Amino acid sequence: MSRVSPKKNSTRKDAISRAAARLFREKGFSATGMRDLALEVGMEAASLYNHIRSKSELLQEICFRIAHTFTAQLDELEKDESLSSLEKLEAVLRFHIRMWVDKLDEVLVTNNESRYLEEPYLSAFLNERRVYVRRLENIIEEGIRKGQVRQIEPYAAVLTLMSAVRGIEFWHRTKKNVSAQQLEESMVANLVTGLKK
Amino acid sequence: MSRVSPKKNSTRKDAISRAAARLFREKGFSATGMRDLALEVGMEAASLYNHIRSKSELLQEICFRIAHTFTAQLDELEKDESLSSLEKLEAVLRFHIRMWVDKLDEVLVTNNESRYLEEPYLSAFLNERRVYVRRLENIIEEGIRKGQVRQIEPYAAVLTLMSAVRGIEFWHRTKKNVSAQQLEESMVANLVTGLKK
Repeated sequence: MSRVSPKKNSTRKDAISRAAARLFREKGFSATGMRDLALEVGMEAASLYNHIRSKSELLQEICFRIAHTFTAQLDELEKDESLSSLEKLEAVLRFHIRMWVDKLDEVLVTNNESRYLEEPYLSAFLNERRVYVRRLENIIEEGIRKGQVRQIEPYAAVLTLMSAVRGIEFWHRTKKNVSAQQLEESMVANLVTGLKK
Repeated sequence: MSRVSPKKNSTRKDAISRAAARLFREKGFSATGMRDLALEVGMEAASLYNHIRSKSELLQEICFRIAHTFTAQLDELEKDESLSSLEKLEAVLRFHIRMWVDKLDEVLVTNNESRYLEEPYLSAFLNERRVYVRRLENIIEEGIRKGQVRQIEPYAAVLTLMSAVRGIEFWHRTKKNVSAQQLEESMVANLVTGLKK
């Protein structure tokens, strides 16, 4: 039994984290209580504390997991010397699109609720995000220098890419007859072609 | 004196509306009380009711003023037969950018707080927005038919355009060394060129 229980605990912990992401997204971090969370996962509020320390801890885990996922993907891309700047930007864009398609709750919580992180976590988070944006600007600047990317303000271009994918939140609600694949290809065609020199 | 007072009233009403947009944006519609609003405009809470009927009325006015502004601009564009589809899309994009640059509070309230409109206003608002999006899709479809716009999913393209400009919220906070004009030109270059066939 003792060998099974860590796995069980981790599964339970995952379920709590997913429920927290759902609630933080729907009600906002501030308005979500431990009772709401207990109800959502079907546990007694008191038992929750066997798995997690606090609501703040759950928010930290969500925000940093998502931030690190983006950072790790960028680390991989930057190491790949076979890719042109434009190919790197396309890969970043595709990764952002997939995160918004597959992990909407967590991505929205990271975007909208991270301001409720406590210090020193808030500063660490904002710093990681600033560095991430700066690294994307560097790729665009490199592309401009190498003549692959049009003369464009790098900051504005990063803002455009990162904001355009936020529209995927509406796609989740309406979906229409557009598949995730069509959505991705259209966004890439629109945004990456627009950067090409 | 009686000829001056309508103007005075309208100026006071405008100030209340601007303060409401600021507060609804910062605290959210639900969390904003009439006392907050009174404090913000420097009036007694009771006197506010000489100018406005309710918090809901203020929200309605903001959301519909912004929605009608976008709709009216599109009406103008659609009448102009000298413009190609691509030129119409560029004009729409530039108009969105300028609204996000110049009227951030009201635009954000319209985007984020309109869900708190009461019926029948909520339905009317959502319907106006749906029609607006559909009209933009029509311009893209027309552009594809005429060979001006690349083969792209019209819904995804509208989502991309309308979401990309949301990034301007961050530009307001950071500004960096990028002027509103540079921001606009970069976004247009990126997004409109990406649509061109």
